[in-house]
Amino acid sequence: MSLLVQKFGGTSMGSPESIKQVVKRVTQARDAGHGVAVVVSAMSGETNRLLELAHNMVTAPVAEDLDVLLSTGEQVSIALLAMALRELGVPVRSYTGAQVTIRTDNTHGKARILDIETDNIEADLTAGRVVVVAGFQGVEESGRITTLGRGGSDTTAVALAAALKADECQIFTDVDGVYTTDPRMVSSARRLERITFEEMLEMASLGARVLQIRSVEFAGKYQVPLRVLSTFEDGPGTLISFEDSAMEQALISGIAFNRDEAKITVVGVPDQPGIAHRILGPIAAANVEVDMIIQNVSESDLTDFTFTVHRNDYAATMALLRPQVREMGARDLVGDDRIVKISAIGVGMRSHAGIASTMFEALAREGINIRMISTSEIKISVVVDEKYLELGVRTLHDTFQLDIAPE
Amino acid sequence: MSLLVQKFGGTSMGSPESIKQVVKRVTQARDAGHGVAVVVSAMSGETNRLLELAHNMVTAPVAEDLDVLLSTGEQVSIALLAMALRELGVPVRSYTGAQVTIRTDNTHGKARILDIETDNIEADLTAGRVVVVAGFQGVEESGRITTLGRGGSDTTAVALAAALKADECQIFTDVDGVYTTDPRMVSSARRLERITFEEMLEMASLGARVLQIRSVEFAGKYQVPLRVLSTFEDGPGTLISFEDSAMEQALISGIAFNRDEAKITVVGVPDQPGIAHRILGPIAAANVEVDMIIQNVSESDLTDFTFTVHRNDYAATMALLRPQVREMGARDLVGDDRIVKISAIGVGMRSHAGIASTMFEALAREGINIRMISTSEIKISVVVDEKYLELGVRTLHDTFQLDIAPE
Repeated sequence: MSLLVQKFGGTSMGSPESIKQVVKRVTQARDAGHGVAVVVSAMSGETNRLLELAHNMVTAPVAEDLDVLLSTGEQVSIALLAMALRELGVPVRSYTGAQVTIRTDNTHGKARILDIETDNIEADLTAGRVVVVAGFQGVEESGRITTLGRGGSDTTAVALAAALKADECQIFTDVDGVYTTDPRMVSSARRLERITFEEMLEMASLGARVLQIRSVEFAGKYQVPLRVLSTFEDGPGTLISFEDSAMEQALISGIAFNRDEAKITVVGVPDQPGIAHRILGPIAAANVEVDMIIQNVSESDLTDFTFTVHRNDYAATMALLRPQVREMGARDLVGDDRIVKISAIGVGMRSHAGIASTMFEALAREGINIRMISTSEIKISVVVDEKYLELGVRTLHDTFQLDIAPE
Repeated sequence: MSLLVQKFGGTSMGSPESIKQVVKRVTQARDAGHGVAVVVSAMSGETNRLLELAHNMVTAPVAEDLDVLLSTGEQVSIALLAMALRELGVPVRSYTGAQVTIRTDNTHGKARILDIETDNIEADLTAGRVVVVAGFQGVEESGRITTLGRGGSDTTAVALAAALKADECQIFTDVDGVYTTDPRMVSSARRLERITFEEMLEMASLGARVLQIRSVEFAGKYQVPLRVLSTFEDGPGTLISFEDSAMEQALISGIAFNRDEAKITVVGVPDQPGIAHRILGPIAAANVEVDMIIQNVSESDLTDFTFTVHRNDYAATMALLRPQVREMGARDLVGDDRIVKISAIGVGMRSHAGIASTMFEALAREGINIRMISTSEIKISVVVDEKYLELGVRTLHDTFQLDIAPE
């Protein structure tokens, strides 16, 4: 008998009909002879309803009190799922985070899991019971309820799988796996059988938001095999694996993209130590997240400093920097909020220097002008004009033959 | 410094405005130098909303799962009240039943409190914090959440007051105390300064439903002084006391009544041992609650057996008994669902045999025919035709001069 941790999100818990679909997935696994521990999120919309209650009451609710309030969302979910399973004669026991016990630090609202007690759950599993655990929540040392922050149920599932030494942690969503790119944009996009953790991290941060990044990092750290599947459609999903050896042999695994970018360039700024900090310091202080940062080697005493931000932060960031251009002795400040980022991702590219040139050549052949380039070990990102988004993604998907499964 | 336990029900927790009123009551007590532990119910309507979720999911939810679901109602309340107090700078800590710990037996849905751990709460109170506790819930030996059944928050408050050896347990409601009778029926009805536990038990079971009966029994058992007050109006309320000595000297404390009665008589049944059981057995098996039971001394070998049930159960009970009339050898089955019960209650009547005759005489003077009589140590109840309800209540209220406070 193998042990599975199955995690279902808010959409899956959103109605009696979809909860029945969850029951189907759980009983399928159980009928196949697996031990099953289930982690559930709050019903979709529930967290917002509770937040509204809080904000109707006070202007600035304290995180400690919000955690007590919000954690009721998953408690409702575990109760409903336990009822539905029990009605089918499935022996079941539900657990809040505190009941498990899932111990966290005391950073209310975004706590980190320190330790999970597994004795009771293991006894339930041994006795043939399905265990239903509230995601997103835990308890700190002095017994106060904590939450892991939005989307934290994925993290609960992975941590529980690690603690139970589960054979697989299955994250059920409304998509049936991770694709080589967005199937709504490229019809030949193919579901990946496997993807590495590193690739998944790059995919997730680039907009293919199937999983919470933190849960993927967590899974990597504890070497928990993760699988992404659909609650509503049958299929094997995508296995996110930490084993490099058994990987698909493709150089590139997927093409990710991000529509909501804007770029800003400080032109002709004196090339002195500390200039990057002078530019980015105030931006960080204003809580604006910076994505790509590029500064070219300069051949004079002046340089151009370019970075990208979320499109929503573009106007505020420009307004923040404009008064400082003169102080910094820079020539100009220019920006563009009609750009997108396209990235090719694959662990295979590590050992293949030719990937970048193949990528740039393919884009050039289609007349797509590259505005910025940034690379990492397993990723090459380019910034192009917004109008080239679809053409760029399709071109790269074709060029790297991602529609064909590797042998 | 004295210690108060204050309990607020669903109506008091029903909106941000009424929660502000709760905050006012708590801070008033705190500003007066009292230590305050607060017990709250779920927001009005919340329990029904949760039950609807359950019944949309399955036809017959199991009590164990319902407890997990329903206990979220009070958890939402403690979070909201804690937020509201904290916003005013009041140091506060909230507790679910499990966090307290309030240990119960494992009768899910109607559990009984076994024990309350007070160490943490006492430490909070000593540190000057207000403690906010979820009513209605506890935890059984193996860590599962239990509920005390509807209205159980009163019981939580009394049990907590007993465990903390509080000076008073204050039950806040939407009425400002216990009255000599319903003020909507008799405008001269007077709020009682004090009432004994025994009187309160009789008043509660007779329809003056201010408090849960179980909580009053509990308060009597542990000698916790209870006070009923209004959340929304200032005033001293009514003290429910276990001290006989300091009682008001009135013979009668109040006139209670119950509109929803029906009476059923098995006429001319053989006066043999076991006949009461033969009549009432099937009724009890059908879960119909029987209130008054009267069987007169018979002078022949036949007797008449009369009892009352809730008006809603009248038709079913008649249908249940009709086929059995012949089997029992009874002459007839007759009933009336247009009757009401009026009761005079007072510990003072114990030593005054004349009360009953004064009562019957007053009713006779108004031409009110008494259909049934039943008496206990501190109560005399009569059943009369429905049309005499208001006249009967007013007549008795006047006769015993309940509009005048005793000296």
